[in-house]
Amino acid sequence: MRERQLIELIARRCGPPRDRRVLRGIGDDAAVVAAKPVCVISTDSLVEDVHFTLSHYTPAEIGHKALATALSDLAAMGAEVGEAYLALALPGRLREEFSRELIDGVVDLAENHGVTIAGGDVVDSSALALTVTVVGWAENPERLVYRDGARQGQRVGVTGTLGAAGAALLLESYDHEPPIPLAADQRRALEQRLKRPRPRLREGLLLAESGASAMIDLSDGLASDARQLAQRSGVRLHIDLAALPLAAGVREVAAARGLAAEELAATAGEDYELLFTVDDRRVAEVEQALAAADCPVTWVGAVEVGTGVVFFDASGHCRCDLHGFEHGRVAAKPERD
Amino acid sequence: MRERQLIELIARRCGPPRDRRVLRGIGDDAAVVAAKPVCVISTDSLVEDVHFTLSHYTPAEIGHKALATALSDLAAMGAEVGEAYLALALPGRLREEFSRELIDGVVDLAENHGVTIAGGDVVDSSALALTVTVVGWAENPERLVYRDGARQGQRVGVTGTLGAAGAALLLESYDHEPPIPLAADQRRALEQRLKRPRPRLREGLLLAESGASAMIDLSDGLASDARQLAQRSGVRLHIDLAALPLAAGVREVAAARGLAAEELAATAGEDYELLFTVDDRRVAEVEQALAAADCPVTWVGAVEVGTGVVFFDASGHCRCDLHGFEHGRVAAKPERD
Repeated sequence: MRERQLIELIARRCGPPRDRRVLRGIGDDAAVVAAKPVCVISTDSLVEDVHFTLSHYTPAEIGHKALATALSDLAAMGAEVGEAYLALALPGRLREEFSRELIDGVVDLAENHGVTIAGGDVVDSSALALTVTVVGWAENPERLVYRDGARQGQRVGVTGTLGAAGAALLLESYDHEPPIPLAADQRRALEQRLKRPRPRLREGLLLAESGASAMIDLSDGLASDARQLAQRSGVRLHIDLAALPLAAGVREVAAARGLAAEELAATAGEDYELLFTVDDRRVAEVEQALAAADCPVTWVGAVEVGTGVVFFDASGHCRCDLHGFEHGRVAAKPERD
Repeated sequence: MRERQLIELIARRCGPPRDRRVLRGIGDDAAVVAAKPVCVISTDSLVEDVHFTLSHYTPAEIGHKALATALSDLAAMGAEVGEAYLALALPGRLREEFSRELIDGVVDLAENHGVTIAGGDVVDSSALALTVTVVGWAENPERLVYRDGARQGQRVGVTGTLGAAGAALLLESYDHEPPIPLAADQRRALEQRLKRPRPRLREGLLLAESGASAMIDLSDGLASDARQLAQRSGVRLHIDLAALPLAAGVREVAAARGLAAEELAATAGEDYELLFTVDDRRVAEVEQALAAADCPVTWVGAVEVGTGVVFFDASGHCRCDLHGFEHGRVAAKPERD
């Protein structure tokens, strides 16, 4: 399938833009969109054998994950979601059916979140790679949430549950060892968190409206991402390991591998939950807003004077040795530290 | 060099955003930009051994070309240029010096055109690939130029000169044959057109202001690109081969290889000039505007009722057999038809 045919396939699969703000979609030199006052943009690449392997991911999962991880960056800013642009580097060895399923994965997620695929590029390549650019919008830059707004005395919260993607990676990387005793549906749920992460778009908007002062999405693991937020804000984050909300099954997987579940949750990445800070007086508001969105929120620590992140375990011991997770496999994100 | 170090290198090389519209650049989950009423976006990928080879291109040329080809799409819409986002897939075998020079190529061109590199991504990969997303702006969507506005009776114009990139590709692909007699500076000029194309950003804006009704950039060759414009506009384009403005040296290279120079110019791609249509009554205005910008403009044909593109040679014979150029080498764009 040549470039132009594939672009036509994408255009057909997407249909005419439903969002009236998209004045020109696929088919011109560039897309044209009616803007709102503030534009929020992020670009993310997923590469075969670096971020995923064809043996572990279906084409639709690859497409889903590429768009989801990009959208997660808009969620972390508290932006309204807008359009997405897909640059697809496709090896000739992959067949038309593969491209079709991959595009389905992208477009299904886009439709679920009201995102228009407004353009892109398709090129030949030796390795499969997807680069997704997502565009979000805001009425006022003051309403967006950055990484540098954490202030001493604020609380640290996290959406949803942690450790699911890390546990799924452990399950995968131990494929050939004796299986970990885990109910099939629980195993499946962990795997879905890794392969079909849900961008917390609505939750990000609600957190911005409820007064979150700093925010980041958990892509490289809490230990790494919290450090980024602390560094940009010029503060120290104090995190209680015992408070971390573990996803179901994480404790079992960690135990079977001789790991502490809370440490797995603190160091493994790809959960794509939101870590945020907020003033004490806005805590009830945050809880109400996220409850209305059916999203768990957990208070895991506090903002202090200092630098970096300090973890405390259940017995009150300081743990300064926790870092982002290095998965011992080819599909690990190589930049984790 | 790991991802974060490379991102820091890019951030340092770019410096703080000079454009006050860029509220947040590299360093947050997403970039934040003060928008204008209409947003124009395009994404373009360049892949090693598909669009370029490391044996023929310097790192700076690769960086320049990736941004230039993306910006050329904004030029073809008549958009004001805004920000750029660079997703870099980088093999571990390439050294820090390589990345540094590649980024220099991107940032030098960006600075020349007042473009801020506001974000991006760096990932590990087996093949070098650059995906550049460019964002342009307009006050009014009516002032942008699309591919579908050509109307019967209008003139067809082209900026600059044609065939330079095609001639440079011929020179390259015949490296091992007896050299074509060509002055060194002329050879160098042809090569620069291929490796450091100049996006016609100012010219695109001027053409939009002067009444261009349809426009496209010449990336796949006049024969292919004119067909796209004709198809989208529902018209036929009549092009006079003898009128095509040949770049210096194209005639010599074509002759040495037994090709008709005008056919080379009509079928070879990558010149990144603008093809446009305009009403007769606005012709003088277009000529004045482009003369003020020191850009040659040549009238090469007319818009007629019908479909497709018909070329006529100097003796008035119709040539319907001209198509986009297939370079007989690995660095050819594979999608040309």
